[in-house]
Amino acid sequence: MAFLDPKEQLERIKFGVAEFINDEEMLKKLKRSKETNTPLNIKLGADPTRPDIHIGHTVVINKLKTFQDLGHKVYFLIGDFTAQIGDPSGKSTTRPVLTREEIEANGRTYAKQIFKILDPEKTEIVYNSAWINKMTPVDFIKMSAQYTVARMLERDDFTKRYKSGTPIAIHEFLYPLTQGYDSVALKADVELGGTDQKFNLLVGRDMQVAYGQEPQCVLTMPILEGIDGVNKMSKSLDNYISVVDTPKDMFGKTMRISDDLMYRWYQLLTDITAVELEQLKKDVADKKKHPREVKVNLAKFLIKRFHSAEAAQAAEDEFNRIFVDKGIPDDVPVFELPTADIPAEGLGITQLLVKVGFAASNSEANRMVQGGAVQLSGTKVTDAKAKFAAAALNDQVLKGSKTKFTKIAVK
Amino acid sequence: MAFLDPKEQLERIKFGVAEFINDEEMLKKLKRSKETNTPLNIKLGADPTRPDIHIGHTVVINKLKTFQDLGHKVYFLIGDFTAQIGDPSGKSTTRPVLTREEIEANGRTYAKQIFKILDPEKTEIVYNSAWINKMTPVDFIKMSAQYTVARMLERDDFTKRYKSGTPIAIHEFLYPLTQGYDSVALKADVELGGTDQKFNLLVGRDMQVAYGQEPQCVLTMPILEGIDGVNKMSKSLDNYISVVDTPKDMFGKTMRISDDLMYRWYQLLTDITAVELEQLKKDVADKKKHPREVKVNLAKFLIKRFHSAEAAQAAEDEFNRIFVDKGIPDDVPVFELPTADIPAEGLGITQLLVKVGFAASNSEANRMVQGGAVQLSGTKVTDAKAKFAAAALNDQVLKGSKTKFTKIAVK
Repeated sequence: MAFLDPKEQLERIKFGVAEFINDEEMLKKLKRSKETNTPLNIKLGADPTRPDIHIGHTVVINKLKTFQDLGHKVYFLIGDFTAQIGDPSGKSTTRPVLTREEIEANGRTYAKQIFKILDPEKTEIVYNSAWINKMTPVDFIKMSAQYTVARMLERDDFTKRYKSGTPIAIHEFLYPLTQGYDSVALKADVELGGTDQKFNLLVGRDMQVAYGQEPQCVLTMPILEGIDGVNKMSKSLDNYISVVDTPKDMFGKTMRISDDLMYRWYQLLTDITAVELEQLKKDVADKKKHPREVKVNLAKFLIKRFHSAEAAQAAEDEFNRIFVDKGIPDDVPVFELPTADIPAEGLGITQLLVKVGFAASNSEANRMVQGGAVQLSGTKVTDAKAKFAAAALNDQVLKGSKTKFTKIAVK
Repeated sequence: MAFLDPKEQLERIKFGVAEFINDEEMLKKLKRSKETNTPLNIKLGADPTRPDIHIGHTVVINKLKTFQDLGHKVYFLIGDFTAQIGDPSGKSTTRPVLTREEIEANGRTYAKQIFKILDPEKTEIVYNSAWINKMTPVDFIKMSAQYTVARMLERDDFTKRYKSGTPIAIHEFLYPLTQGYDSVALKADVELGGTDQKFNLLVGRDMQVAYGQEPQCVLTMPILEGIDGVNKMSKSLDNYISVVDTPKDMFGKTMRISDDLMYRWYQLLTDITAVELEQLKKDVADKKKHPREVKVNLAKFLIKRFHSAEAAQAAEDEFNRIFVDKGIPDDVPVFELPTADIPAEGLGITQLLVKVGFAASNSEANRMVQGGAVQLSGTKVTDAKAKFAAAALNDQVLKGSKTKFTKIAVK
């Protein structure tokens, strides 16, 4: 394929990045790539100890796709060298030792997930143990000679730990060096990472220069905010969408994000261009498009990516059936219903109304049902003695009156 | 052989040391050794880049001999692993890369020199590349995990360099670790070194504990003062006796040291015991022995060690012939005569008298010769036109009058 104009490529590459180092070097690389019709080597490293990812983790993979779409060669590097060691100082439990089997199983999980975004034909998965394990002690000494203690201590976390007297074992200095050496081994032209990886990515530049190579460009992607729009997306804050979430969950969670966050997610999670995004914002501002429509398209994009086009359409249809067609707002609050609160024979509708706070007592709830105001996902509930099992309640929207809505989430 | 009483061994081991860590552990080792009739493993490491040694360097080898005399196993370790690398950061010229041939040639030079003191039958020469080169990258990481950055930065020279902003390359942290690992590989019970090696020797203790071994005891020997009695013996200060100096030079240089320094050298360079040294001092104080006699015995001990008993006797005879028999004091000053000042046909006796400052002019020198006062190493010079080649002047004592003596050193 013919490569695009270097400046146009650079514009697409830099769209949405947190930081890019640097334009001049990148243009030089892109020009040479185009002139010689040779793709650039793009590197992304992953830690094989944590293969479960949420869509926040896919921001950088999405950027990797941009490079792939531009015709460049993508290396997805699994840092198994360190995983085979764990934390030899025994101080950290976050670095478990993995067996070869576990590492490879995690590698397959990664592959399955990233290939929902990347083209498997154009992606090479590599394991750094392939070259690091072949190094001799002499190679290791030579590698370590390329970087100083003072510069290593400039890394934020090392600075803090050194100043506070928290031990840093010497091998922790060797890990960024091996990561940097990976760039030498791959002859990387660009390395991607989260903003927290900036220091390590810069070590890669230095290592390449030390080994006589042209330094890689460094691209960091911002941390994605979770569905709350405030905190970074994380499992522990429960504000995430997992890549293995059901289409229905993906749809529901996406519909609850704010309009601002919606544009941010467009930028970081889809293949939209800068121009297209501006147009989208303008159309909404000009009321040519309804924000809900734009959000639905975002939700469908994500479901299509992680599931299928059919699943995306089905999720939209379901959403329309439950919300749009019934006049239910799409940002109803969620009520978490503990499984333990649901008896084996099912939970009575009146108890449910009291639990979610729509009725103060069972008798008030009774009156609400008999008054015909109560609906479960668009279906009127007229029998005050009706009981519902967990499956019949989960993800359903309970309507208590014209203004009282809540979505049930059985936990 | 039966081992001596542990307390008696400890006393001999500690005689003359700068620091010993520590009595309690050592007594435990010595007791076990005696009970099981098993020699302890004694380690001394040497840097193969500098095989030329002066007697200051033999202080620690002399202590090694004490251990050997006590029946223990001596490992003379040649640190060739680092020598095969040199300074990979290219910042230091003091760490040249050595070829295998150079390392082994230096090893042979060392062997030749140390076997003038140690018993070759009871000494094992080992090269640390034998085990370090076999380490895998994983082994290297695990080794580096056993020590912290903060503790490494406590080493005096690292502290200074870090504070002053002088770069420390990371591999410099790995060298003390490999040196410490050597103690693990040898299962060392004691490691010896100069006072400047204390930090590295202590790393050895920590590494042994990390690898599940009993920590080695650490013994540092003081730095030997040079013949000036003030500065440490060093080549650059030209106050040294080389182990390859001629018997005549060894004798002459030793005779010039002060009485205080003489006792110090006895302690650090001979196999004298604490009791014997005290007796010697007492005998001199009581005028039972003349200091010159004691010094002659020291000189003969050194010549016997580095050359032979015959050479020692010959040097004493020569000394008696030149100095004692002619009433020349044995501490005459040395006059350094540049080779360039000696013409091809030889240097005239009158020019020599002027040069050393015994005569103010050639005519005064003439008168001195004709007056019969001038002698060269006990032989009267009566011909004022006599000329002497460099070989005939070097190491000879020029007498200009009853009180004017100088020893000529052709440089």
